[in-house]
Amino acid sequence: MKINANLSTESGWEIFEHNFIADHLIATGSNFLIGNGYLGYRGTFPEWRKDQYVGCFLSDTYDNADGKWTELCNVPNALYTLIKVDGEAVITSESLTYENDHKEHSYCRKLDLKQGLMSIRNCWTSKDGKRLMLKAEQFASYADLHLIPQRFELEVDRRCVLEIITGIDALVWDLHGRHLFDHSFSSGPDHLSVKVKTGELGTRIIVMEGLSIDGKKPFKQTISEAENQEGIFRKLAWELEAGEKLVLEKIMVVYSSNDLPDPGVAANHSLKNALEKGYTKLKADHTPYWEEIWFKTDMVIEGDLKAQTVLRFNHYHNFIATPFHSDCLPIGARGLSCQVYQGSAFWDQEIFNLPVYYYTKPEIARNILTYRYKTLDGARHKARELGYEGAFYAWVSGKSGRELCPSFFFTDVLSGRKIRNHFNDWQIHISPDIVYAIWNYYLATGDWDFIKKYGAEIIFEVARFLYSFAYFKKDKNRYELIRLVGPDEYHENVDNNAFTNYQARFSLHTALIVYDRLKEINPDYLAELLKRLNLSDEDYWQWEEMARLIYLPQPDPENGVIEQFRGYYDLEDVLPFRLEERLIDKSEYWGWPNGVAVHTRVTKQADVLQLLCLQDIFPPDIVKCNYDFYEPYCQHGSSLSPAVHATVAAKAGYIEQAYKYFMHSCMIDLAETNKAFSGGIFIGGIHTASCGAAWQVIAFGFAGIKASEEGISFNPVLPEPWHEVRFKVFYRAQELYLTISKASFSISAPSENSAPVQINAYGNTAVLQPGEMLLFKEPLS
Amino acid sequence: MKINANLSTESGWEIFEHNFIADHLIATGSNFLIGNGYLGYRGTFPEWRKDQYVGCFLSDTYDNADGKWTELCNVPNALYTLIKVDGEAVITSESLTYENDHKEHSYCRKLDLKQGLMSIRNCWTSKDGKRLMLKAEQFASYADLHLIPQRFELEVDRRCVLEIITGIDALVWDLHGRHLFDHSFSSGPDHLSVKVKTGELGTRIIVMEGLSIDGKKPFKQTISEAENQEGIFRKLAWELEAGEKLVLEKIMVVYSSNDLPDPGVAANHSLKNALEKGYTKLKADHTPYWEEIWFKTDMVIEGDLKAQTVLRFNHYHNFIATPFHSDCLPIGARGLSCQVYQGSAFWDQEIFNLPVYYYTKPEIARNILTYRYKTLDGARHKARELGYEGAFYAWVSGKSGRELCPSFFFTDVLSGRKIRNHFNDWQIHISPDIVYAIWNYYLATGDWDFIKKYGAEIIFEVARFLYSFAYFKKDKNRYELIRLVGPDEYHENVDNNAFTNYQARFSLHTALIVYDRLKEINPDYLAELLKRLNLSDEDYWQWEEMARLIYLPQPDPENGVIEQFRGYYDLEDVLPFRLEERLIDKSEYWGWPNGVAVHTRVTKQADVLQLLCLQDIFPPDIVKCNYDFYEPYCQHGSSLSPAVHATVAAKAGYIEQAYKYFMHSCMIDLAETNKAFSGGIFIGGIHTASCGAAWQVIAFGFAGIKASEEGISFNPVLPEPWHEVRFKVFYRAQELYLTISKASFSISAPSENSAPVQINAYGNTAVLQPGEMLLFKEPLS
Repeated sequence: MKINANLSTESGWEIFEHNFIADHLIATGSNFLIGNGYLGYRGTFPEWRKDQYVGCFLSDTYDNADGKWTELCNVPNALYTLIKVDGEAVITSESLTYENDHKEHSYCRKLDLKQGLMSIRNCWTSKDGKRLMLKAEQFASYADLHLIPQRFELEVDRRCVLEIITGIDALVWDLHGRHLFDHSFSSGPDHLSVKVKTGELGTRIIVMEGLSIDGKKPFKQTISEAENQEGIFRKLAWELEAGEKLVLEKIMVVYSSNDLPDPGVAANHSLKNALEKGYTKLKADHTPYWEEIWFKTDMVIEGDLKAQTVLRFNHYHNFIATPFHSDCLPIGARGLSCQVYQGSAFWDQEIFNLPVYYYTKPEIARNILTYRYKTLDGARHKARELGYEGAFYAWVSGKSGRELCPSFFFTDVLSGRKIRNHFNDWQIHISPDIVYAIWNYYLATGDWDFIKKYGAEIIFEVARFLYSFAYFKKDKNRYELIRLVGPDEYHENVDNNAFTNYQARFSLHTALIVYDRLKEINPDYLAELLKRLNLSDEDYWQWEEMARLIYLPQPDPENGVIEQFRGYYDLEDVLPFRLEERLIDKSEYWGWPNGVAVHTRVTKQADVLQLLCLQDIFPPDIVKCNYDFYEPYCQHGSSLSPAVHATVAAKAGYIEQAYKYFMHSCMIDLAETNKAFSGGIFIGGIHTASCGAAWQVIAFGFAGIKASEEGISFNPVLPEPWHEVRFKVFYRAQELYLTISKASFSISAPSENSAPVQINAYGNTAVLQPGEMLLFKEPLS
Repeated sequence: MKINANLSTESGWEIFEHNFIADHLIATGSNFLIGNGYLGYRGTFPEWRKDQYVGCFLSDTYDNADGKWTELCNVPNALYTLIKVDGEAVITSESLTYENDHKEHSYCRKLDLKQGLMSIRNCWTSKDGKRLMLKAEQFASYADLHLIPQRFELEVDRRCVLEIITGIDALVWDLHGRHLFDHSFSSGPDHLSVKVKTGELGTRIIVMEGLSIDGKKPFKQTISEAENQEGIFRKLAWELEAGEKLVLEKIMVVYSSNDLPDPGVAANHSLKNALEKGYTKLKADHTPYWEEIWFKTDMVIEGDLKAQTVLRFNHYHNFIATPFHSDCLPIGARGLSCQVYQGSAFWDQEIFNLPVYYYTKPEIARNILTYRYKTLDGARHKARELGYEGAFYAWVSGKSGRELCPSFFFTDVLSGRKIRNHFNDWQIHISPDIVYAIWNYYLATGDWDFIKKYGAEIIFEVARFLYSFAYFKKDKNRYELIRLVGPDEYHENVDNNAFTNYQARFSLHTALIVYDRLKEINPDYLAELLKRLNLSDEDYWQWEEMARLIYLPQPDPENGVIEQFRGYYDLEDVLPFRLEERLIDKSEYWGWPNGVAVHTRVTKQADVLQLLCLQDIFPPDIVKCNYDFYEPYCQHGSSLSPAVHATVAAKAGYIEQAYKYFMHSCMIDLAETNKAFSGGIFIGGIHTASCGAAWQVIAFGFAGIKASEEGISFNPVLPEPWHEVRFKVFYRAQELYLTISKASFSISAPSENSAPVQINAYGNTAVLQPGEMLLFKEPLS
């Protein structure tokens, strides 16, 4: 089953690449990424080096090399292997046909989504016609997060000398300056290692490599440390007979001093263990983790194998980007696929990456939300710096939560001058978005313990921030939010942005609810918390007043449209394709301060649709009006946009549009049409947010899931090509199995469930007992 | 006495130009302008046409030809004359020496400041050596504002045929599209005329020309209407003998249908009268007006003839720019010297042009301030359009007071894209500046009748606007003004701009004072006014609260500096000359949104100094600190800036600096260094505001004049080069004659004064009785 001209699937659980296309080298390196939330290793080839964007990005290694950009480290590559046949270097990525022995096209790169494996297969032909069949498979272990085991299989069709240079390539690629210093190389009988230190914070990182050979002993074996700290390598050589096979197993081990005080000891231990176990056992340790992931999170789409595959591809990437193992690390906007966006969290984390976990693996959501608690001081610091109180979360948030977004990052390509954008100081919706996420996590999971321990403090500090940020208009008796950037970043310096104001109101309401509930059920705890935060009832009443009097742009009584911000309607009424004609340089930034979109209605993403995606406060006809109005103006300059359009289109009853945007969103990385560079800046890598959003389009869009204190409701619709969609959700620890088919919608609860669940579907409420099933027969689309 | 390399004076009452420099053609055309507040006629040469920027700009003829720019009309030129000697055209501006008969350099252009006359003298030599001596003099009559009489004297040194083509050149130069249509030409025995209609509003304009010849009758005389509406001309020819003199008198008459319903009849009548009187009588009718002007407004500087002359040059231009005859017309920012700035009022009018009149000719100030009353509806309209209440005066105000400032005017010269500047919607200080002017007019004149009839309504409507514009910060218990442009237009989108906030407070205070006083002395009138404006006591208490709680940036306790706006100190600390090195194109705009100054401390003009110039609310040491801090950052990108620096330097005790900036300000036009074009836009013309400011530097800066309800105070200092300064001021109709000399400062009151005046000098208070003198002997500098 074709996914596109160069990609296919067989079972819906894997993606095959049939031709290596040099032009897509950056995108495919990201798409075929393996990872485990601790590290990400790009889907590159053994003999590749920094120029081909080989990279292993390590979580929790933030470092600033240029005084401006803090980013994760790319660590030395212990999966480096150069193969030579009779002295001629084998280029793995060359696509050749090995016709004599194999009927099929010999080149293949494969991503096994089910088990988190990346493999390549290729036949290489030498100048004099000798052929080498190469197979390699690798995975980032979930059983031991520090391991990347790799299995190499080599076979020649004639007698030859096969030589390999394999080891650790320490020449890494960095976006913003060199991070690794003080290289020390060492080797032992069965390992190589490189120890480095980061420039800014002195974080120690160790990369080790272990090799075991199954087959003939090499006739030559030397270890050479390359000059200029290039790396440390073994040279091995064999005399192979025709048809003779060689199997090598390489183990890459990575540790940093942020993991534990002595990463060297740990790495040694890990490597020793791994070598003892061997590749097959290591893989057997690893795959159950993926089984468990898919058991809980998989969505089955019947009738559309392409949609099924790309959906799983997106799940896969969302998952490997998530540092599930830690409660003090963020999900990077490009995951661990590269250094772009600094390995840091944006609002993407809460709004796009996390919701899938609320309903499938809430312990992960809890960990990542706890990260926001642990970075509260960073957010407090930012608020103070800018003259506000409470918590103003960083637009770009690394480990400390201090703002990592520089004031000047885009370049005006026409003048070469830096542009001052205000993502860092005007895009305040990040703070209420976090509160929104916390509350929705709570609604889905019922985890009041999290609210009490962590959530309440965040929620109160955000309310405090919003109050200090807001202006009161006495003549209009209302609070206003002034000088904002909404998700539509093309329009900076706007007032009363609908999305931001509604999210702020949500956030203030949440503060009042949490306050009231704590007062009711845990007054001593509340008193202690208020005291610690230097809050009082007076603050409560300020939030209450602001929640009541904050200005919320209402649907126009005439046409139902909510104005994106004050003055949006006055902007030039022009469509995105017309603006494209106004570009002087294709790589121009469209937004602030003087890009082509600034004085027009054209949006990067549609704020009002984003609002309607998150808050179910307007009836479907209003959703429809706003979709009709805003959809044409959206340029989808953000990868977050198509998924939002898909979800809102589904809510509005535009199922065909919803399907179109769902596929668009799922294909964002696979389509390989994204620019790797913009205005001279590398922006490649996986669009992790749209990966997370894929699940949401089905759950919140097509299935219409919405959790509340009382129960969970559904409003399923089904796109034309799909016969059936089946998946699990967990509502407050109760498993629910949903089957949405053309004719009916059913929810069954396993008998292991511990409690009944109140279900609402199509407006009808029922109670689902453990071991029972509810069947609804409303028309679905 | 030299003024610069090419200009000189003899008596301090005139400016001679010695060489015609083609490069300065635009600037000198403005500098040698004649005018009378009704019209301005550029100081050009007889045979010049539109390519040499000949122009006669008529007040009250606003017209919009391109849908964007409203501007005054340039009317057909009835002073056109081409002279031919034996068929060879005489180019007046060629500078030649007429050595045989005249010892002096023959070329001279002269501006007689005392009588408002412009004259040229030149000797022209033909290819075969014949010489023509030409003298011409012209003035814009104050006796009949519609007249420009001209006297022409011609003399040849050999027998020749002298031919002239003289009449009305209807090919006018316009900045923004054609304004004049439906030309109809006619002629009679002693006149030519052109009638036209403006394109937008259909204003009818008539220009007539009358000619009388003193000397030999021409042997040929024909009238030809040029094709393509080029104009209507007479051709005359004489056979002249060597040494024979010819005197021609031309009268240009201009009327529009905005002057009276039948401008044709009026023009005919004016012309007939004028021709009957003849040039000499017309001049005799005119000069007493200038005598009266100078009698009241002249400032005598002893010991510095250059300063004396350039000061009078500035007075002269301020005066001829002022439509003193009307109470519904503004003073244009380029006066009547060209169409730049649309012949419209900016804040310049109130802050720079008017104050001289409060103290010398208050009836003029009253007329111009009444213009603001008559345009109150335009200001109300603008406020409503932008979502505010009350009166938000136009940044660029023509006759109606509707906003004439387009949203896009500058061009980004690097991309060719239009820039959105926010002078029209964010530069709110214009409204409180008008209140400031009204109140200071009242303090100087005691004209309560004006306040009652006109001022109160303006003042209340501005207070209402400010209240509706302001935001209240509940957490800080203060009103703030958000998103402003101060006079320093390089920094847009700033909050709590010190200048704007202090001016707003002044404005609100004034509203309270006027309200209280009307309530006390004229409660019925107040009640009627409040009712008409739909105001109540509630509004009063809102203003009272805002005046009390508006945030006013205070001098830093450490260094005394007042921050220009929130965040100014965080901007890059760099000096203007360094920024100049960053320009990619010399004609780049330095300001918003992405000019070189935007993210730096470099200012177009210094807002805090402007504040200290207007409001005497800080002690001299604070003035000093702020001068020290801000002066280096000022790029003087505005012609208003040097005068403000001069005034504040004088207040700070930096007399040498004050003198330097005074001379800089007075030379702004005479230095001829101003660019005539910026970013492809013509910006030539007289800088009327700095002309008005010259008087203020002496009065408010060096003399330290300040009027209050109780009396008038002085704090004189004298720049080193000056021996003595003498001038009159009128405080509440009482004439005061000031003499500031090195050793003493005296004030005398003529015996005709009707009341004693309370005087304060150097902190000492005394009462000056009619016919008496006060002498102070404090050190002056």
